Amino acid sequence: MNPSPATYAPITPEIVARLREAIGEEAVVTDPDKLEPFGRDATELFHLPELLVEAVSSEQIQQLLHLANVYHFPVTPRGLGTGLTGGAVPLSGGVLLSLAKMNRILAIDPENLIAVVEPGVVTGDLRKAAQSKGLFYPPDPASVDTCSIGGNAATNAGGASCIKYGTTRSYILGLEVVLPSGEKIQAGVQTRKGVVGYDLTQLLVGSEGTLGIITRLFVKLIPLPPAVTTLVALFPDLPSAMHAVTALLTSGHLPSAIEFMDHQCLELIGDLLPFEGVQESKAFLLVETDGAPGVIEQEIEQMGEICLEHNPVNVFLAPDSYRRAQMWEVRRQVSVRIEEHAPLYIPEDVVVPLGRIAEFVETLPELAETFGMKIYSFGHAGDGNIHLNITAESRDNLQRIEEGIKAVLKRVLSMGGTISGEHGIGFAKKHLLPLELSPESIRLQQEIKRVFDPNLILNPGKIF
Amino acid sequence: MNPSPATYAPITPEIVARLREAIGEEAVVTDPDKLEPFGRDATELFHLPELLVEAVSSEQIQQLLHLANVYHFPVTPRGLGTGLTGGAVPLSGGVLLSLAKMNRILAIDPENLIAVVEPGVVTGDLRKAAQSKGLFYPPDPASVDTCSIGGNAATNAGGASCIKYGTTRSYILGLEVVLPSGEKIQAGVQTRKGVVGYDLTQLLVGSEGTLGIITRLFVKLIPLPPAVTTLVALFPDLPSAMHAVTALLTSGHLPSAIEFMDHQCLELIGDLLPFEGVQESKAFLLVETDGAPGVIEQEIEQMGEICLEHNPVNVFLAPDSYRRAQMWEVRRQVSVRIEEHAPLYIPEDVVVPLGRIAEFVETLPELAETFGMKIYSFGHAGDGNIHLNITAESRDNLQRIEEGIKAVLKRVLSMGGTISGEHGIGFAKKHLLPLELSPESIRLQQEIKRVFDPNLILNPGKIF
Repeated sequence: MNPSPATYAPITPEIVARLREAIGEEAVVTDPDKLEPFGRDATELFHLPELLVEAVSSEQIQQLLHLANVYHFPVTPRGLGTGLTGGAVPLSGGVLLSLAKMNRILAIDPENLIAVVEPGVVTGDLRKAAQSKGLFYPPDPASVDTCSIGGNAATNAGGASCIKYGTTRSYILGLEVVLPSGEKIQAGVQTRKGVVGYDLTQLLVGSEGTLGIITRLFVKLIPLPPAVTTLVALFPDLPSAMHAVTALLTSGHLPSAIEFMDHQCLELIGDLLPFEGVQESKAFLLVETDGAPGVIEQEIEQMGEICLEHNPVNVFLAPDSYRRAQMWEVRRQVSVRIEEHAPLYIPEDVVVPLGRIAEFVETLPELAETFGMKIYSFGHAGDGNIHLNITAESRDNLQRIEEGIKAVLKRVLSMGGTISGEHGIGFAKKHLLPLELSPESIRLQQEIKRVFDPNLILNPGKIF
Repeated sequence: MNPSPATYAPITPEIVARLREAIGEEAVVTDPDKLEPFGRDATELFHLPELLVEAVSSEQIQQLLHLANVYHFPVTPRGLGTGLTGGAVPLSGGVLLSLAKMNRILAIDPENLIAVVEPGVVTGDLRKAAQSKGLFYPPDPASVDTCSIGGNAATNAGGASCIKYGTTRSYILGLEVVLPSGEKIQAGVQTRKGVVGYDLTQLLVGSEGTLGIITRLFVKLIPLPPAVTTLVALFPDLPSAMHAVTALLTSGHLPSAIEFMDHQCLELIGDLLPFEGVQESKAFLLVETDGAPGVIEQEIEQMGEICLEHNPVNVFLAPDSYRRAQMWEVRRQVSVRIEEHAPLYIPEDVVVPLGRIAEFVETLPELAETFGMKIYSFGHAGDGNIHLNITAESRDNLQRIEEGIKAVLKRVLSMGGTISGEHGIGFAKKHLLPLELSPESIRLQQEIKRVFDPNLILNPGKIF
């Protein structure tokens, strides 16, 4: 299905000249030093692009893709390179199309509760711009201050708030997209509903830059919840923590985050957490709720009581804003700290049914021992999304570790789970795709790819 | 692209015999009296199917589609026939596949917050089953007590609660689907997140039974909001009401419904509404909010104050449950009453940007007069989704009325709106599709159709 890299044309001086003529000198970068940072994302994968295009308009992208079809060279789109599966790594060389300079917030419209943005806008900047007008863009991937909204849409990024607010998908009303053919279409709507034809917007969201290049997004905003509060609960073991989560969710509460960390994470970063009892605890729970002031305080108390019924080491209600900020920062830094400490680091990102988190996590030590790896678990307990950070003391046993990862993922699937909740497939996980999807499902998807991109010039080598 | 009906094979005795052999006597119905009700949905469209298949299993559906490809006869899937665009009408004859008997609720799982259901389950039954376990399935199309969850997914049905909770799409985690080829796939997940490959689930949702037949749904549930309350506000004109809506939404409140009716609807059903001042009013607003008791009362008061700032005739806070039920019943009956009174009745279902509802509705009287029609407006003010019920005193001027409808829809599009927010395209609106979608977008969609259904045997003549 995918041609081997060898079948693509190299970027010749003629192509460079025609590109410069078509889209301007400034957008075309050939200097190898400048190319280097665009050969990677947040994984270890690297491949130097032959050429960098820094687009500032959709028309430039149309011209680029037109030439890519004429000469048959590959184009790999890239937001801000925070992906965790190599989705933006230009594996076949060719042109790396950076969307970083298309970073204008074109509108934050309080009357219509929408934003119109370019793909290179930092997600955190969109959140702040919305907030300044009393509006809310909920998705909050851990990389919120460094990732792009276009990349978020391409991967259907998640975050802690999904439990209440859903993933990026729920906030993308419409997209302007340059197709691999170079044609530009407007998919979806600028309104809050729309059911005209197949939902190409929803197909493009999560397609990891393989079906088209997002050049403009029409984003749904909601009223900003006026207040937010949290609780922290420490437990002597993970099952107690998870039973508390189930009890919280079946008690009628809908928190805006329920995050957890296992005892290995606590061992690593527990000293950074500003709470008493961390040392004696084997599981950490962070519960956040947002809404009306006067209400959420009542809610957090009720939720605290539920936690107290599940044998906690300690429960802290509504820590002050300083401790709250510190705690979130620690939560965000967990994976960084894990990676720092390990010569081999592989982030997995599974989801299991809510009620089976504890059961699943309890099976990990045995698998870890069998395959000579260490597995740190933390993540979004409220939606069953567990970041398994797998490390090893050396890179020598990589093959064995990969077998171990497969064993873990098979366990996930046997429990009714999925092998990726937020990060996507990209390149890093494409060998695992057949574990989850049937041949018929993959065939359909490959044919859809062909419909959009008959010459397979856009982001080749990804997903399938 | 679509073959004319003439190119399909008629249902011969041989086909009937082979079907009976493959899926059993009971599922195959040939009696013309029994076929008749399956030739229509909730529109005026009618076409008698040649044969009715009442499936009780996905295996029967696989067999049926296998034979449809062998003999090249069309198959039209049907939930409970409440659609408003002819999507389930077997326009080319062939087999009408009723999913009404696949109506088991297979699981309501409070631990995992999901439901597993067959497509023929009445949406209201799913809501009640969830509620009995303290859980909530939010989508509430007006036909909630008679429509099917499978049909809801096929059309991405909406309803009043979308403003807070989103459309059906947001609650479909995964689908078991029989493809037109007869192969069965599992799309999506049974968990709360999943980003493995292209999201076929989201492509199938809203595809109006043209890409596959949904045989099982994995549905996301959320904790049941423990309480709900409403307010009713009557205004002397529609712009005042709509300015109140904008003020509500930008004040940080997120109600679970904001419904409106214009003065023509009030003239028709105002006498049924249990509120003083209806006669003097030209616009009706119903605002509902759900959440924690003790909070929502406070919220509804604050929202009532906002309404009071917009020159209302009257505002009623938290009417008793009897009046509340009566009012929702009236709201649901509006279209029935409009239809009863008119020899010609065409339901349209547009969406305009939130801030432009008043401006749009104000332009309708002039268009109505020009084209000799009457336009009743009511619907979901909270998400800009307006049900335009168009009537005329006789059927003689049908062509002129259709021109009028086109003029209305063009107005919608020029304001950044969409021609359908909930009902879909089906057959009734397919001539209007090119008003909204570009040729390139339509071409992509038709090619996707070909990928799923190369012989075009599934629900032909719809959407495109």
